[in-house]
Amino acid sequence: MTRPQTLKESTPDGGVRDIRPGEIAITLPAEADASVYFIGRIRTPWKTRKEAPKNAREARETGAVCTIEVDPRWEKALSGVESCSHLFVLYWMDQARRDLVFQTPAHYSSGRGTFALRSPARPNPIALSVVRLLKVEGAKLQVVALDCLDGTPLLDIKPYFASTDSIPDAQVGWHADEKARKSG
Amino acid sequence: MTRPQTLKESTPDGGVRDIRPGEIAITLPAEADASVYFIGRIRTPWKTRKEAPKNAREARETGAVCTIEVDPRWEKALSGVESCSHLFVLYWMDQARRDLVFQTPAHYSSGRGTFALRSPARPNPIALSVVRLLKVEGAKLQVVALDCLDGTPLLDIKPYFASTDSIPDAQVGWHADEKARKSG
Repeated sequence: MTRPQTLKESTPDGGVRDIRPGEIAITLPAEADASVYFIGRIRTPWKTRKEAPKNAREARETGAVCTIEVDPRWEKALSGVESCSHLFVLYWMDQARRDLVFQTPAHYSSGRGTFALRSPARPNPIALSVVRLLKVEGAKLQVVALDCLDGTPLLDIKPYFASTDSIPDAQVGWHADEKARKSG
Repeated sequence: MTRPQTLKESTPDGGVRDIRPGEIAITLPAEADASVYFIGRIRTPWKTRKEAPKNAREARETGAVCTIEVDPRWEKALSGVESCSHLFVLYWMDQARRDLVFQTPAHYSSGRGTFALRSPARPNPIALSVVRLLKVEGAKLQVVALDCLDGTPLLDIKPYFASTDSIPDAQVGWHADEKARKSG
């Protein structure tokens, strides 16, 4: 079931993403179960993975304004969005490999399972970011900030409800351990 | 582009979801752009829409323990998840209609665009919930709480990082207006 593979796959900047030592890939199911539409594109200042922020926190710190271009077909679906201070943005990491179950990110001390990471490499490469909404103009939204590459396909926009979506005291134990190691 | 339709589509409890007065449907694209795998199933106490909680807040208030059953193929991807207090769970609302851009939920005073709502009816019916993790046992996660029907297909599990995902003062203006109207 967890047969290691050595497949290569192109990465967002056109390179290849090998499996690193310790990583584990599985054989993907023969068939998919459902389909998604790309409903727009995300415009960011970042053309390559190298120049892009490493994560959502870094993206926010840049203060960069990104533009979400919604396909005109869906423009009417934005009615009411202008009253939201923050939004969930779901987008498709279309260049990520989907067969990794265990990953060894270069900046961490040890490997972890895909579902304990926010890595784009996952069975369904759906990325999720919380953004601050600046402005809605027609079918374009200006937001701060996203860490994806320019041209990334958009999947969904949802209102962010503090009452159910905000958990200020949430903990990611393994990440706290990594931080303690770096500062200790 | 926004041609109204009167199509019916089955709902999670096997009924049909008509378009309500004021709702607007569009013609969906002829082809999808990408595919998703169902990577597991969500087990909840709710077999029909009628008995299910109306939203995430109600689900949490029930205190009901739900079980996320991850397909054995992906079990190794859960390594490290046990150290997380809270998780994002993404799942597929497989019975929702996908062509509505403007909706008039029965419990609100007026209609709103699909992207201003958390309704399951959206172009890509990907639902998103923040859950509290109680326990990981093999490929099963016990969490509090989800508002979906028993058997709902699972798409993804992600760690919840308070530093970027928690926005305690986020506002949904239209929703605040609805609450003021009800209490006023």
